[in-house]
Amino acid sequence: MQYGFGIDVGGTTVKLAFFDRLGSLLDKWEIPTVTENHGGQILPDIAISINNYLAEKSIPREKIIGIGIAVPGPVNNNGIVNRCTNLGWGVFHIAEALSQLVDFPVTACNDATAAALGECWKGGGEGYQNLLLVTLGTGVGGGIVLDGKPLYGARGAAGEIGHIVLNREEPRLCTCGKYDCAEQYCSATGIVRTAKQILSECPQESLLRNETVLSCKAVFDAAAQKDSVAIRIVEQVYSDLAELIADICNTLDPEVVVIGGGVSKAGPMLLEGIHRYLPQYIFHAISDVKLALATLGNDAGAYGAFKLVLDKFYNE
Amino acid sequence: MQYGFGIDVGGTTVKLAFFDRLGSLLDKWEIPTVTENHGGQILPDIAISINNYLAEKSIPREKIIGIGIAVPGPVNNNGIVNRCTNLGWGVFHIAEALSQLVDFPVTACNDATAAALGECWKGGGEGYQNLLLVTLGTGVGGGIVLDGKPLYGARGAAGEIGHIVLNREEPRLCTCGKYDCAEQYCSATGIVRTAKQILSECPQESLLRNETVLSCKAVFDAAAQKDSVAIRIVEQVYSDLAELIADICNTLDPEVVVIGGGVSKAGPMLLEGIHRYLPQYIFHAISDVKLALATLGNDAGAYGAFKLVLDKFYNE
Repeated sequence: MQYGFGIDVGGTTVKLAFFDRLGSLLDKWEIPTVTENHGGQILPDIAISINNYLAEKSIPREKIIGIGIAVPGPVNNNGIVNRCTNLGWGVFHIAEALSQLVDFPVTACNDATAAALGECWKGGGEGYQNLLLVTLGTGVGGGIVLDGKPLYGARGAAGEIGHIVLNREEPRLCTCGKYDCAEQYCSATGIVRTAKQILSECPQESLLRNETVLSCKAVFDAAAQKDSVAIRIVEQVYSDLAELIADICNTLDPEVVVIGGGVSKAGPMLLEGIHRYLPQYIFHAISDVKLALATLGNDAGAYGAFKLVLDKFYNE
Repeated sequence: MQYGFGIDVGGTTVKLAFFDRLGSLLDKWEIPTVTENHGGQILPDIAISINNYLAEKSIPREKIIGIGIAVPGPVNNNGIVNRCTNLGWGVFHIAEALSQLVDFPVTACNDATAAALGECWKGGGEGYQNLLLVTLGTGVGGGIVLDGKPLYGARGAAGEIGHIVLNREEPRLCTCGKYDCAEQYCSATGIVRTAKQILSECPQESLLRNETVLSCKAVFDAAAQKDSVAIRIVEQVYSDLAELIADICNTLDPEVVVIGGGVSKAGPMLLEGIHRYLPQYIFHAISDVKLALATLGNDAGAYGAFKLVLDKFYNE
């Protein structure tokens, strides 16, 4: 059997995963992301961790197909990173740089795109070749898989769907400097913002008024308990999400939309809600697009990064 | 030298073009589109026209690489049409059907997608590999080229960008049954609608008040003549177009956006206007996306259809 690594570099930790050729995740661990000195220690730390792992487990180097690395910023399909602000990285050839440190073939990808590939391979989109992953966490991220291959985009910036403009009258300033980005409505933070706004506009009693710090989870929990104000909030969220998803589907015509990130813990009620509003926004020929929940959680990026390794370096 | 045909089937005429292998358009002509009997005569008419042409010009059949056909409806990458309402067509394998009639290899594609491929190959997007074509005519169409290849979409419906929802307070019903589709603001018809609305809302004098039947061309002409109401109208149009284009670029990250269709006759002022509003809507990493005018006019679909033939059937 041959093996490889899938690595997902985050702002606080680097997730490393060891896979066999068939895609079974055999082992995983984390190391801290050292962002000091423009993130210059991150790749050497990864190289040390990989070498230690192979030595510890007595795995011969010739059994390793390669390493896939997913990073939180734009990466083009030649493996060049174009600034990862939260890691301190500028523009450099990350695949080459890591390969020189570890002496294995390396391929690189944006983290959201890697997660989309992971979910397409072994997660909520398994069995499909054309997939949109919508990640609803602190922000809104997106990854796209077309004909089984990740879409990088000309600048490595494909799938920046969090900054699509939604159709809302009330202006919300985004951290990117623009107004009315989807992220300001559909992320966990955006949903709390919508919740606070609706709570302040209506006088009705609500479980949510007892919360000292209002969370996205509390909103969905209260809606599940039939709290009428919470229901009004989640209906607005479903409509916002349906508009975002439809806008993208009208461009891409994917087979399946997989929804991940913390907000997706709301589960089937979220899919059912989005599904109800989709016909208002989606082109009729695409209206049978499937909606599914992500299943790989925080491992999606590592799965996708390793899938890239198989696609690029593995020969039967 | 080897040759081939690029065919673009429209609602009223079928455009046929004869190309050499290098992509020089050597000849072109039109035949009427007979939509009676569920469009059953369209492919036989095309076959007759091609055979007549080859006989007339004494071109040996072995010199023909193949035929590309672009149609006004969804076609998947296996060559299966999924309903072309204005031709009367249902679901069938168009590439196979035409191939049986002409005894040449045939490949098929949606017309907007073919036009995008044509503009990418020999038109306003020449030299690029990742392109979005926005066609602003009676409606709004879109075609996408990624890594030099057309994006079909899972249902052959990729690029239905005319039905992306725009951020407007005033609701406009679209022919598709939804509200606020980009087509209702950015097509020639949509622009006239915006013009009438602004004219009715403001009391100012305007050249446009002399027009008996207000046209999109008249609006741009008056704006070029510094008519202040017309300027207000086109500024709204630029903003609407910038929002639409940005929403799509935030998903696809293309190198270039090519603008075609009747509205694009407004020329450089249109590009300059859209360019001014783009930063309000586009993600900053993508803001250097290029804007260009389409240059192939009504031949774009035929060029793209023939490019598909080269990609699929031509071996050096």
